Amino acid sequence: MESHRLPFLLVSHLVNIRYLTGFSGSAGLLLFGPRTVILWVDPRYTLQAQEQAAGVEVIEEKGGILKAAASWLRKNGVREASFEASNLTFAHYEHIRKEAGDAVRLTPAGDLIEELRAVKDEGEVEAIRGAGRVTADVFTELLPHIRAGVIEQDLAAEIEYQMRKKGAEGVAFETIVASGVRSAFPHARPSSKPLQECELVIFDLGAILTGYAADMTRTVFLGEPSRRIRSLYSAVLNAQRQAIRSVQDSTPTGAVDSAARRSLAKHQLARYFTHSTGHGVGLEIHERPRLGKGETACLKSGSVVTVEPGIYLEGVGGIRIEDTVLVGSEDVEILTPASKQDWIIS
Amino acid sequence: MESHRLPFLLVSHLVNIRYLTGFSGSAGLLLFGPRTVILWVDPRYTLQAQEQAAGVEVIEEKGGILKAAASWLRKNGVREASFEASNLTFAHYEHIRKEAGDAVRLTPAGDLIEELRAVKDEGEVEAIRGAGRVTADVFTELLPHIRAGVIEQDLAAEIEYQMRKKGAEGVAFETIVASGVRSAFPHARPSSKPLQECELVIFDLGAILTGYAADMTRTVFLGEPSRRIRSLYSAVLNAQRQAIRSVQDSTPTGAVDSAARRSLAKHQLARYFTHSTGHGVGLEIHERPRLGKGETACLKSGSVVTVEPGIYLEGVGGIRIEDTVLVGSEDVEILTPASKQDWIIS
Repeated sequence: MESHRLPFLLVSHLVNIRYLTGFSGSAGLLLFGPRTVILWVDPRYTLQAQEQAAGVEVIEEKGGILKAAASWLRKNGVREASFEASNLTFAHYEHIRKEAGDAVRLTPAGDLIEELRAVKDEGEVEAIRGAGRVTADVFTELLPHIRAGVIEQDLAAEIEYQMRKKGAEGVAFETIVASGVRSAFPHARPSSKPLQECELVIFDLGAILTGYAADMTRTVFLGEPSRRIRSLYSAVLNAQRQAIRSVQDSTPTGAVDSAARRSLAKHQLARYFTHSTGHGVGLEIHERPRLGKGETACLKSGSVVTVEPGIYLEGVGGIRIEDTVLVGSEDVEILTPASKQDWIIS
Repeated sequence: MESHRLPFLLVSHLVNIRYLTGFSGSAGLLLFGPRTVILWVDPRYTLQAQEQAAGVEVIEEKGGILKAAASWLRKNGVREASFEASNLTFAHYEHIRKEAGDAVRLTPAGDLIEELRAVKDEGEVEAIRGAGRVTADVFTELLPHIRAGVIEQDLAAEIEYQMRKKGAEGVAFETIVASGVRSAFPHARPSSKPLQECELVIFDLGAILTGYAADMTRTVFLGEPSRRIRSLYSAVLNAQRQAIRSVQDSTPTGAVDSAARRSLAKHQLARYFTHSTGHGVGLEIHERPRLGKGETACLKSGSVVTVEPGIYLEGVGGIRIEDTVLVGSEDVEILTPASKQDWIIS
């Protein structure tokens, strides 16, 4: 924090509070400052905060934690405090401003903690590796059960159940199982539709382990695919390979996106790739950096990101292939190691 | 909207957008105004928005939906627009303000849509009734499988799996299974701890059906409970009954909370009841009204709220009993109809 010359920073984003202190409750407010690390919580979380947030002064507050923090600033003669502009609502900002009074200047801070979180330490990587392994294993073990007649929702339920059985605390997002023409919707929710022969099926799933998420997508085909479908699948797989190949320490994130797009363009498929190539993964399922067109932030050793090109053809279906990958100093590690070859289910 | 004399309202809270238009995507911005209902979405959601949001002008926007809405206000000479202060971050507010320019006055609005959402129509009630039935059925069918040796996490996984199998789109919150001394933590997450004989076990669960949530808690005891435990359970069950009895059209929400507290106070247990008595349930698991100490908002016919007194004794365990209930014009309907009598598992 020193380098940013911030005398005081109010941290309101719970994920950032968890990252900085270990506290994982659903309400709390953290103040960082010179010789000051205070966490305000309501009575539900006093014990938990004291257990989890070692070295932090925990203050139990019944009358509202925003008010408590604001009046602390006022009473302690703090002249300036930053706040997380991307994670504080306008209403909460106004509440703090009024309670703190005119003597305290509140200034919006950029996403400082999010920047720190974009590079993972060894413990965080180990957690994501675990989440990725559970995610990949569940899909691999599900493969023999994927067949015509099975309901999308039932497969999604099975996936989430097996993740829990393998130790996941939960799912990082609602599991997607989208078959046939529905697979052309990048964010389709699982429906009561049964899988049918000669259909593409997209599975997008991710487990959470010790707070950290993984994210993986696989696409399969039921039956014998046409030459057209085979070539579409190869094109997406190649685009993903090219994008992963471009991933390394110091690569601009936009360059990974371009690599995927260039590869698809060779097959005149770039226009069907309607979203960005990937995003950071960690305590949140979508975090920094973003791997999109024109993004200039650079990957760093310790970045964990998804690489997920996809194409969506209305009336035909969609194909998306996604892995969560770790950027190393010299190599890239796939953290969601499920086969991308066994996509034809006959 | 007429009665609030709001010329334009920017709706940024996705749940409110869903409530008003039917659009259920994960990104969008809605503008309400005279002869104007515009929904800005990114290309991922264009088709979905057109399908779901009948009668709404859908604008696909690649360059950022906040910017698009702000420049629409500027270009159309809008002089004043309200925004959802509780659901817009300070950073997004600043973004809109700069893009809209000085000619557009942005004013914070109260939680207008949340107020509307606090009273459910028949279709919404039917959805919550369905979610409540799934929730209650899953627990009732789980009862024979609750026994010493079973892992908390496995029971939680089983609950969530069975909810999905019964048609739930997902869970309204992470299922709680907390046994023994862990049940004394109101928000304990399921752990790898096995259930043991002579322990209290709290189950807190809720399904989502067609977007709407239900919320239910049951507490059981493994083995033969002592007189002390029996009397604690009776006290909580009575407190819940008294609180439900006080629920009716026009009752202040604070009076329901008092009813539960007064009942527990007769047994000198009020000090162990460390949270509020309940909350509204609908598209969100926690919504208006809040049933807490001193709350003055009144219940209305069509309100759907939880009633969930609980007591937490450190080193002993916790007991919480919760139902989601519908306030009718003349009666109260329990929407989570699972037994509260069959709590002793022998």
